[in-house]
Amino acid sequence: MERSLKEIAELVGGELSGDGSLMVRGVAGIKEAGPGEVTFLANPKYLRELKSTKATAVLASPGVVSEGPAVIHVKNPYYAFSKVVAFFAPAKRPPQGVMQGALVSRDAVVGSRVTIYPNSFIEAGAKIGDDVTIYPGVYVGEGSVVGDGCLIYPNVVIREGVKIGARVIIHGGTVIGADGFGYATDEGIHHKIPQIGGVVIEDDVELGANVTVDRGALGDTIIKRGAKIDNLVMIAHNVLVGEDSIIVAQAGVSGSTELGHHVVLAGQVGLVGHIKIGDGVMVGAKSGVSSDLAAGQPYSGIPAIPHRDWLRVQAVLPKLPELRKQLMELAKKVEALEAKG
Amino acid sequence: MERSLKEIAELVGGELSGDGSLMVRGVAGIKEAGPGEVTFLANPKYLRELKSTKATAVLASPGVVSEGPAVIHVKNPYYAFSKVVAFFAPAKRPPQGVMQGALVSRDAVVGSRVTIYPNSFIEAGAKIGDDVTIYPGVYVGEGSVVGDGCLIYPNVVIREGVKIGARVIIHGGTVIGADGFGYATDEGIHHKIPQIGGVVIEDDVELGANVTVDRGALGDTIIKRGAKIDNLVMIAHNVLVGEDSIIVAQAGVSGSTELGHHVVLAGQVGLVGHIKIGDGVMVGAKSGVSSDLAAGQPYSGIPAIPHRDWLRVQAVLPKLPELRKQLMELAKKVEALEAKG
Amino acid sequence: MERSLKEIAELVGGELSGDGSLMVRGVAGIKEAGPGEVTFLANPKYLRELKSTKATAVLASPGVVSEGPAVIHVKNPYYAFSKVVAFFAPAKRPPQGVMQGALVSRDAVVGSRVTIYPNSFIEAGAKIGDDVTIYPGVYVGEGSVVGDGCLIYPNVVIREGVKIGARVIIHGGTVIGADGFGYATDEGIHHKIPQIGGVVIEDDVELGANVTVDRGALGDTIIKRGAKIDNLVMIAHNVLVGEDSIIVAQAGVSGSTELGHHVVLAGQVGLVGHIKIGDGVMVGAKSGVSSDLAAGQPYSGIPAIPHRDWLRVQAVLPKLPELRKQLMELAKKVEALEAKG
Repeated sequence: MERSLKEIAELVGGELSGDGSLMVRGVAGIKEAGPGEVTFLANPKYLRELKSTKATAVLASPGVVSEGPAVIHVKNPYYAFSKVVAFFAPAKRPPQGVMQGALVSRDAVVGSRVTIYPNSFIEAGAKIGDDVTIYPGVYVGEGSVVGDGCLIYPNVVIREGVKIGARVIIHGGTVIGADGFGYATDEGIHHKIPQIGGVVIEDDVELGANVTVDRGALGDTIIKRGAKIDNLVMIAHNVLVGEDSIIVAQAGVSGSTELGHHVVLAGQVGLVGHIKIGDGVMVGAKSGVSSDLAAGQPYSGIPAIPHRDWLRVQAVLPKLPELRKQLMELAKKVEALEAKG
Repeated sequence: MERSLKEIAELVGGELSGDGSLMVRGVAGIKEAGPGEVTFLANPKYLRELKSTKATAVLASPGVVSEGPAVIHVKNPYYAFSKVVAFFAPAKRPPQGVMQGALVSRDAVVGSRVTIYPNSFIEAGAKIGDDVTIYPGVYVGEGSVVGDGCLIYPNVVIREGVKIGARVIIHGGTVIGADGFGYATDEGIHHKIPQIGGVVIEDDVELGANVTVDRGALGDTIIKRGAKIDNLVMIAHNVLVGEDSIIVAQAGVSGSTELGHHVVLAGQVGLVGHIKIGDGVMVGAKSGVSSDLAAGQPYSGIPAIPHRDWLRVQAVLPKLPELRKQLMELAKKVEALEAKG
Repeated sequence: MERSLKEIAELVGGELSGDGSLMVRGVAGIKEAGPGEVTFLANPKYLRELKSTKATAVLASPGVVSEGPAVIHVKNPYYAFSKVVAFFAPAKRPPQGVMQGALVSRDAVVGSRVTIYPNSFIEAGAKIGDDVTIYPGVYVGEGSVVGDGCLIYPNVVIREGVKIGARVIIHGGTVIGADGFGYATDEGIHHKIPQIGGVVIEDDVELGANVTVDRGALGDTIIKRGAKIDNLVMIAHNVLVGEDSIIVAQAGVSGSTELGHHVVLAGQVGLVGHIKIGDGVMVGAKSGVSSDLAAGQPYSGIPAIPHRDWLRVQAVLPKLPELRKQLMELAKKVEALEAKG
């Protein structure tokens, strides 16, 4: 598939500076791209790569001037690039229907244009929307709903009573709706609290591989529209993840904690239970959060404090042995002064 | 299903203060509960919710007085609540037997009243007890034992030579008995040490989703009676987890480390290998433990120290930049004094 | 199976000090071993166990003298032991071929002497080498390659476009080739960047259970020859893991970061994206790495600094409250001196 730069500029709504009849057939990073490929320049620190790239065209911000490749000027080059990548990505296979070897209960409802692979198992009362793809080894429990356009990769477990919206993507090995971790301890024995809540996952959420999202103890665990969750993340029972929030790999959110919208938790962050994280909060990698965080601020550290303060603490930490030595020396000097006095 | 408060009081062995003929049909949290529902009050800080709750009855400690809902007085309200939740939870399906499409070796032994779903695979020499439920996608390896009353959720992997006791619950995607991480390095090449030990999981253990419990290198990895392990926890080869211990999500225990009974590891804790953690030790979230810990104490930090000491360290940490500044100023003053002297 | 010590000495290329006609039939740790068993002594701190062990023979370094068991002297006792363990390990089952219930596309290519279990699913264009074992519940995507002698445990997901070399071992529940975590954010909405790269896993790599290795965004994610990766590790898109590197459980490597050869990341380590870790670097458990690390050195801490420096910082940390107190007292003394002056 080849397209002209004129067509690509139209696709991304950009302004072309260069020869619109040049043909391209794929995408690549700015260092790897060759003739016939489109690349992008989103970070000014790569500006010097513009001279040496062999790409035929570069998506870049207005004002970027090139002596080499053609430039398609767009407000958000990375977003424009995502459209070009999607455009050149291989076409999806046409829907295959419920394939032989797929085990779908007669009491389940299945929409149109689905592909349900063999070795999947759909329980009674489940509802699978239109244009859904369910790969082998997927389990969908009783009464659970998989919305239109969802893409469920192999070996995903969706327990009973889970409601999934439209266009949700769930990667391999992820488990939705396992029992929350709740026990009442009596005389040293931990008695299981039956976890009778469910899970609600709204539209356009993406969950990475081997993620776990536990079902609520009484009410629901909720992941709101547009949230994106990376691999190996733990979402405990009755957590609320706000709209368009991002949770990076191996982070964990403890029970009943609520994240606002556009929250970002970096990799390996941990949050205790029963706290509230304000809208737009960013938490730096490996931080531990043990209390509410006010909206719109970045935080870091264990326990997390404002990010700027944490940077200052981190700058002093490696100097601690030296500071201690200075303190000891100073104490001696003061002692000498006192003796003199 | 509706029951009178008199019946509920009998179920939990509590003393009713209120109208025993009132009917209830379910459970909820104290804020969410409405008429016809039972709730609980375990934490004194929610005492003020007692006035506003719309629940028909509240399980609470002796001495709690209510002007609104009926109160059922019990020693351990949370434990009593777990019994009520279980009572109102939907009835389990009757056993389905070995369902068509389940692949059970003719050389495996299967007990009575089991449900073994399609797409499960039970190898030769495996032994499945009575009243066991095995969901789709579960693998049980050669010679492994799944005890009476176990509940094995979809896509669990139980490798060969794993012995699981009675009433064990294993959530989706968990892998029991993968090879431990052991290599002998010779001239820069890592040679695999065959991991020929097994795994023993005793009665009443619960393992969360996507947990990994490795098999022993020579002897067994052991998880003792009543231990509860949350999602995404890593238990390495030859670890011993003591009775009634609790390991919260994303914690990891390295090879040959031994936990006593009633140990609690909070979320994202890490333990090095070959150490001993005493009975009743609690380790705070995100801590790193690199040496033996004496019984009965709480610890925190990286590396872990007594929790109280760590709290004091944490209180000073954010003040480090200020302390450094004070030290510098003090040094100048001392210099000035010395010059004068 | 019984073998003479003479035979065992030959197997490991060692020099026997003792009676070569003694027979052994298995292996065990130095404390657990009984008559008829071989053990090893790799760490001098266990030297005193040599007197009390009941093993028939001990693999030990040249120069180790025993009054009890026979000694087989070898340069690398632990490596020699791994050979003896492998020798006594139970024989593998003969290949079973493509078993009934395995779903292998007619457009896939399958080598000789394979065992492909039921409930596995091999897509069109996939290529399975000779002497491969694929357990139940494994998915191999379109065009992916599984090299000769690979061992793929149950419920592993290998997405499309993944190239796996020879003798690779992948433990249960691991997901290779899930989409990398890449979004272009425009007006608060996160738009998915299609992840069109692949994954390359070279010869003799071992991946633990419930690991995730994401596919590249444009180019490939690469794990080079001989690397060993433990359970629950996260390898993000376009990461490069160098030859013979070791990544311990629950560690995570962010996108486009490159590890040299013989790098060791201990448990729960986290690396940010787009950095380079030099050959032979060791990173201590729970460390957070946020910048390039020079080759051949050990590092620790958050953020990671040279390990020796971190040990010094760690030694001061618990004394921080005391240091603060000393500083306050010193300030008072200086004030008093100034007042006097």
